[in-house]
Amino acid sequence: MTRQTAIVLLSGGLDSATCLAIAHNQNYAIHTLTFDYGQRHGVELQSAHALADHFQVVSHTVFPLALRIIGGSALTSSQKVPKQRDLSSNEIPITYVPARNTVFLSIALALAEVKQCNDVFIGVNAIDYSGYPDCRPEFIHAFENLAAIATRAGVSSSRKLNIHTPLIAFSKAEIVAEAARLNVPFALTWSCYDPQEGAIPCGECDACRLRAEGFAKAGFADPIAAKPRHA
Amino acid sequence: MTRQTAIVLLSGGLDSATCLAIAHNQNYAIHTLTFDYGQRHGVELQSAHALADHFQVVSHTVFPLALRIIGGSALTSSQKVPKQRDLSSNEIPITYVPARNTVFLSIALALAEVKQCNDVFIGVNAIDYSGYPDCRPEFIHAFENLAAIATRAGVSSSRKLNIHTPLIAFSKAEIVAEAARLNVPFALTWSCYDPQEGAIPCGECDACRLRAEGFAKAGFADPIAAKPRHA
Repeated sequence: MTRQTAIVLLSGGLDSATCLAIAHNQNYAIHTLTFDYGQRHGVELQSAHALADHFQVVSHTVFPLALRIIGGSALTSSQKVPKQRDLSSNEIPITYVPARNTVFLSIALALAEVKQCNDVFIGVNAIDYSGYPDCRPEFIHAFENLAAIATRAGVSSSRKLNIHTPLIAFSKAEIVAEAARLNVPFALTWSCYDPQEGAIPCGECDACRLRAEGFAKAGFADPIAAKPRHA
Repeated sequence: MTRQTAIVLLSGGLDSATCLAIAHNQNYAIHTLTFDYGQRHGVELQSAHALADHFQVVSHTVFPLALRIIGGSALTSSQKVPKQRDLSSNEIPITYVPARNTVFLSIALALAEVKQCNDVFIGVNAIDYSGYPDCRPEFIHAFENLAAIATRAGVSSSRKLNIHTPLIAFSKAEIVAEAARLNVPFALTWSCYDPQEGAIPCGECDACRLRAEGFAKAGFADPIAAKPRHA
């Protein structure tokens, strides 16, 4: 029997690595899609590549995306990445990249159409990233509705794109536990928004702190634990 | 009074040039957005630039988009552009670029968010391009629904993105007539999918034939009329 095909959006972070492991565990033939969108470091891209290799994907596409031209985020501009921010704040952080998941999913939709694939996995999370509008379930549903009519498949009505968000309701600790259960190689994953020289996590950005909290609560040691600059 | 701001998607073709003229005529302060997506020629990009200059836009962004990596279209791959195709066919032509308007609008959404702008103009047309799934009104409405919840604005609910499709129900002849009424400089527009050397329209691709038919029916002369290779 032919295996079902899936596109997995893979940033190289812990969440998308866990998503990849989940799709792999469900026996999908996987095409990973990674965006090179002017993140201020290449460590993420190396992690994505190593993870794609580890899970023996069918293809790994790195799609260059000049979001820097659009601007509007600390991740794609020269603005400073915030440190020791109040994580319980309801404010959308300046690391939010305008319309990022809309852009990512639209390119995934194009790839899915070319690969004749009905399933896309994305590691969005509505709990720890509650401040990001495009990580919410209602956003994902609206995109599925759009996808259903946006492509050839939408015209012929024979196929419908399913966007899988297995982590959407997980806490970071639950993600770490699920990753451990599925043997995600933690050392190959990368979270820090603002690494120090020599690819050392800063320990102070939102991503480092959520990761550290997740490992601590799940009771696992992080092989690439950050060493804060101002400890 | 401050002028309202709009993003206009500008390919350099007749339809998007007319769209730009319409937004200009409605007194919007305009940011044009052009995609360099591996079309097989640069003439379109030059046209877009010249049109942006002509209509004195506030900014003109050329966004590189590596759709060639995704493939799946005669416009972004080495497949031959079809000539003398039956234009009345209901089949989606191979010049269709997978999920193109979804990708284009998602990047427009990002730019709109950064420019704090509520209005996007796109020259889609459901009549002559009835075979393209992402030129249909229901697609545009689904994208508006998505946009309403995809961004910061969607979270604060203070703004809603309006996607203007002034040409969606126009025939090509009606577009030519509207363009003439608004003094669109026809000589600066470009339609051909497959120009001959020296930037000469081929006269045989769908785009050339629809353009020629539009000018003929509207009773205008096309200053860059094609000279078919096999006349």
